[in-house]
Amino acid sequence: MSKLTDLPKRILIGRALRSDRLGETLLPKRIALPVFASDPLSSVAYAPGEVLLVLSIAGVSAYHFSPWIAAAVVVLMFTVVASYRQNVRAYPSGGGDYEVANTNLGPKAGLTVASALLVDYVLTVAVSISAGVENLGSAIPFVVEHKTFSATAIIVLLTLMNLRGVKESGKLFAIPTYVFVGGVFLMLAWGAFKGLVLGDTLQAPTADYEIKPEHPGLAGFALVFLLLRAFSSGCAALTGVEAISNGVPAFRKPKSRNAANTLALMGALAVTMFCGIIALAMASDVKMAEYPAKDLYRDGAPVGPDYVQHPVISQVAAAVFGDGTFFFVLLAAATALVLFLAANTAYNGFPLLGSILAQDRYLPRQLHTRGDRLAFSNGIVLLAGAAVLLVWIYGADSTRLIQLYIVGVFVSFTLSQTGMVRHWNRLLAAERNKAKRRHMIRSRAINAFGAFFTGLVLVVVLVTKFTHGAWVALLGMVIFFGTMTAIRRHYDRVAEEISAPEEPADDTVRPSRVHSIVLVSKVHRPTLRAVSYARLMRSDRLEALSVNVDPDETRALQAEWERRGINVPLKILDSPYREITRPVIEYVRSLRRESPRDAVSVIIPEYVVGHWYEHLLHNQSALRLKGRLLFTPGVMVTSVPYQLESSEAAKRRARKRQDWSAPGAVRRGPVDRRTKEPSGKG
Amino acid sequence: MSKLTDLPKRILIGRALRSDRLGETLLPKRIALPVFASDPLSSVAYAPGEVLLVLSIAGVSAYHFSPWIAAAVVVLMFTVVASYRQNVRAYPSGGGDYEVANTNLGPKAGLTVASALLVDYVLTVAVSISAGVENLGSAIPFVVEHKTFSATAIIVLLTLMNLRGVKESGKLFAIPTYVFVGGVFLMLAWGAFKGLVLGDTLQAPTADYEIKPEHPGLAGFALVFLLLRAFSSGCAALTGVEAISNGVPAFRKPKSRNAANTLALMGALAVTMFCGIIALAMASDVKMAEYPAKDLYRDGAPVGPDYVQHPVISQVAAAVFGDGTFFFVLLAAATALVLFLAANTAYNGFPLLGSILAQDRYLPRQLHTRGDRLAFSNGIVLLAGAAVLLVWIYGADSTRLIQLYIVGVFVSFTLSQTGMVRHWNRLLAAERNKAKRRHMIRSRAINAFGAFFTGLVLVVVLVTKFTHGAWVALLGMVIFFGTMTAIRRHYDRVAEEISAPEEPADDTVRPSRVHSIVLVSKVHRPTLRAVSYARLMRSDRLEALSVNVDPDETRALQAEWERRGINVPLKILDSPYREITRPVIEYVRSLRRESPRDAVSVIIPEYVVGHWYEHLLHNQSALRLKGRLLFTPGVMVTSVPYQLESSEAAKRRARKRQDWSAPGAVRRGPVDRRTKEPSGKG
Repeated sequence: MSKLTDLPKRILIGRALRSDRLGETLLPKRIALPVFASDPLSSVAYAPGEVLLVLSIAGVSAYHFSPWIAAAVVVLMFTVVASYRQNVRAYPSGGGDYEVANTNLGPKAGLTVASALLVDYVLTVAVSISAGVENLGSAIPFVVEHKTFSATAIIVLLTLMNLRGVKESGKLFAIPTYVFVGGVFLMLAWGAFKGLVLGDTLQAPTADYEIKPEHPGLAGFALVFLLLRAFSSGCAALTGVEAISNGVPAFRKPKSRNAANTLALMGALAVTMFCGIIALAMASDVKMAEYPAKDLYRDGAPVGPDYVQHPVISQVAAAVFGDGTFFFVLLAAATALVLFLAANTAYNGFPLLGSILAQDRYLPRQLHTRGDRLAFSNGIVLLAGAAVLLVWIYGADSTRLIQLYIVGVFVSFTLSQTGMVRHWNRLLAAERNKAKRRHMIRSRAINAFGAFFTGLVLVVVLVTKFTHGAWVALLGMVIFFGTMTAIRRHYDRVAEEISAPEEPADDTVRPSRVHSIVLVSKVHRPTLRAVSYARLMRSDRLEALSVNVDPDETRALQAEWERRGINVPLKILDSPYREITRPVIEYVRSLRRESPRDAVSVIIPEYVVGHWYEHLLHNQSALRLKGRLLFTPGVMVTSVPYQLESSEAAKRRARKRQDWSAPGAVRRGPVDRRTKEPSGKG
Repeated sequence: MSKLTDLPKRILIGRALRSDRLGETLLPKRIALPVFASDPLSSVAYAPGEVLLVLSIAGVSAYHFSPWIAAAVVVLMFTVVASYRQNVRAYPSGGGDYEVANTNLGPKAGLTVASALLVDYVLTVAVSISAGVENLGSAIPFVVEHKTFSATAIIVLLTLMNLRGVKESGKLFAIPTYVFVGGVFLMLAWGAFKGLVLGDTLQAPTADYEIKPEHPGLAGFALVFLLLRAFSSGCAALTGVEAISNGVPAFRKPKSRNAANTLALMGALAVTMFCGIIALAMASDVKMAEYPAKDLYRDGAPVGPDYVQHPVISQVAAAVFGDGTFFFVLLAAATALVLFLAANTAYNGFPLLGSILAQDRYLPRQLHTRGDRLAFSNGIVLLAGAAVLLVWIYGADSTRLIQLYIVGVFVSFTLSQTGMVRHWNRLLAAERNKAKRRHMIRSRAINAFGAFFTGLVLVVVLVTKFTHGAWVALLGMVIFFGTMTAIRRHYDRVAEEISAPEEPADDTVRPSRVHSIVLVSKVHRPTLRAVSYARLMRSDRLEALSVNVDPDETRALQAEWERRGINVPLKILDSPYREITRPVIEYVRSLRRESPRDAVSVIIPEYVVGHWYEHLLHNQSALRLKGRLLFTPGVMVTSVPYQLESSEAAKRRARKRQDWSAPGAVRRGPVDRRTKEPSGKG
């Protein structure tokens, strides 16, 4: 690639900024963990509760299945983490699930994963914000009493922050995430100490409540189905695990190993927290019901519709630390904050995925160029709008939203892992080195098991959750899939239409001469500039053209033209209806008809102004004319700008916009690495 | 003025349309009367009621002053009609109040009149629609029970019709107007016959009601004030009289005389109907109160808030024809329809005035060019929005809206008549012919009396109505005045900034050479076309420029460029952040810095597409870049369009738009007359 070496050094001032950014961007593990793990770690705030909630349908006696379900989730977590450690090593360029599926399984699989991920990002926002509001509500009742409003307000706030362009700062993520993890571990340790060493009885706020089972005495197939449903809900703990595989380029070297280790650490933390919370919930007799208003009894009577069912993590915290104590409030706040950060990761991931999809022409091309504020803004607004819609439809109820959540995650898990199996197969076909082959076979086995297990879970989730809301997620995926297919088809059709023929003679007749026309309304600086630029172009014919909209003005123009001796013939077009566009278009067409081999160059002096309201006062006719001229074949349209003094304001605004930092910049890593390293694409 | 004689005859196909339109446009008197008079004639539907309503404040005994008030209105009507007959004769080009005031009294007076007229148009819509709904409501109760909603719906309907571009058809106006006038005269005749010949007692629906006066036994100054207020309300009958003076060019020859005679006929009809309705209202004992709910008594008790006070014209019709009879319903429908047509005249007059104001640079210039759909649409939406706002604020209550209405009318009457006096003074100073002088002196006397009388009424209206709502109209005028002054000031400042210096050397250094750059992303037809056009221009240096956003694509581009042997050097700019705009801008700036006397010509291949959603998929980077380049001095930007197949759709749409007929086309008359005849401007 030819480097730009002949640019004056002054431009290098821009370079300084670039290396600055680069340094900032590379993440040490201790920062990378919170940046990428706020999403999966935060899910332990709601996943354990969802398990208990589903089990309660068969009555509180079914709670004793919860350790088994926790164990299944743990096995699944280990499988997924082990699988993604292979992804991270095989695709150090940051091959996310989309790239892995696209490369190894073909574009349809890739697009399916992409659709699933897009739905997932929307749900990450909706679920995390709703759960965050519920956790905050255990400390501040007002928030949970106006759940939908609070959730919407927080989404709007996050959206404005991201539109404005907050830099995704590692430290911003680190503090609440570590406080949250520390708080949960402190809670687990203190609870275990109290229960096992001091022998205290842990009493959750709902310890004395009773549950009226929806289906008491469930057994046989029905019980298995319920357990599978509970397991499906518990799988919410796995959402967001795949995020690291997109973000390898953001790690410090050795990138792959650091990413893999961070992944393992994250898995270990999540599993411990998940199991610990379930264990403490059992120990402190937490009671949760799917429909608490009618199925949860206090002193023999249903608690009624005013009852607020607090998340399991906050009930456990109340049992361990005591309700309203400092640690209780701190943990509630940290939990809510981590959940909001988890939602924010979707704001960062959405444009990143959009940019990759745009590169493959599934989305508008301008999404591909980084730092294109307008394109990013559209994506962010779309994401936020969809999330707010879901929050309103589901009343910001995290339990109901989670039913939609897990489908997309497991669609991409399964396809990504299947793709990895293909990846190893391909490499194995070419590899002769025995040690390397052994290593690859082992990796393939891990990914194959991952694909099998996550595929199984996907089936379970689909079967147990379909009517509970999973169909909504599938519908969303179909809509994304259809839209992106249509966009790609459009681009392909256009590409075919405009593809250059091999034989130049094949093309339409090349123009031989240029007839230039300068549009003139008055003799003023912009006109004079346009005329003098037009002269420079040395076209074969040059004339000035004016439309006679007002006879007095036209006469004045002609007189002034002659008086100044402007050496370009001035032609006047009559316009009986005071139109400008039509006479000019008709004149240009007549020129083309007279000599079809000539091109017509229309030169328009244009005012450059600084404020939107000035646009209403200038250039409107010119713009309209330009729009129409573009439809006329054989015409090119040249704007000769004249910068009015007020344009300085707009220039300053444009410069400011350019320095905007796009969301997701940190987790993406420096861009030149990403595009220059072999990207594993076929 | 040089004529366009070298255009091929094919273009004359357009001419045919023009003469068509011309024939359609010239109005015989019998059609001109309904076109211009629906506004003033329709006001007899509410003006008599307003008089009774104000008088009722002093009790029903004050009703006997109503003939005196009617007489005063008649005298005023004759004065105004006589005055405007002078206007019509002196300004056959259609000098409306704005032009008369502007020419003879200076720009401030002109702008005051313009502001008053703009406010007036808004109020014409609000008042006429509200009164129409009230009249329709006497036949269809639902309409008046949902007054605000109905009025809004009708305004929206009218707006959509006008946005769509309904041709203002003479016949459309003629039928309801003549049915209305015929119906009223039939009612007057039949009522007089029944009362005077048959000796029947006419009984209005409210004949047996009693009025509790707000201020019983009013006398002295207070009574005079009340009578003046009643007179002010009666003056609503004069609104719209001035419309003909704008429309002289639309009349058949002899234009001025036909217009003057139509004016006289309109005045006679309005006065007869106004007085007849008042007389029948007195004869049939109509009772109207300002606050009927508490001041109107039936069988000794107030009628209460559910009572709907029907317009005086419908009460009289009920007395004469009988409630619910065929003629009653026909008259109610015709009255409502004429009132809606009156509202529609504002939709026609507003853009006409806007176009004249735009010519004087008080409004954005594009309003001046006729048939500019977008500009007209903005005006129509503004008018409708303001009218809907008033309808909502005042609950579509015509009585309350009328308080705002009359100020604007009399501001323009007074200033216009004063302007006419000046006009005659000027002519008299130059005229020596005795007969002509005598004629002028007589005209001046009429206009002087008109100015005096309308000025007096203006003072009366201001004094009696100020607190009742006239201040709102004044505020509206001030806002229009301020906005238009600011726009004019902006245009003047820009005109000064861009005015061409006398000495060419005075200007910035003229560029001596052109460096052309063709922006290239791929080798396809649009690019090849842009390159071949760029070659035609024979600039001093020509190079192709591409931004390296994706290294693979850039390498492919370079290979293809060489393979095809395209004879233009290809330069690649690096873009570490996948930006397009910034590297190009910086490169252009560096070129300008290297040789400041050269101009840079940036040539951009542009896709022309047919649907809005395709715009989202194409040209976005090019558009953004173009926007930024315009701020860079010494640069011209050329679009080389490539019409995709889908662009045909947009072309068809654009053609359709071009044939759109602007509102107000009929009443304006053919445009070339208007601009070619001496326009009376100083």
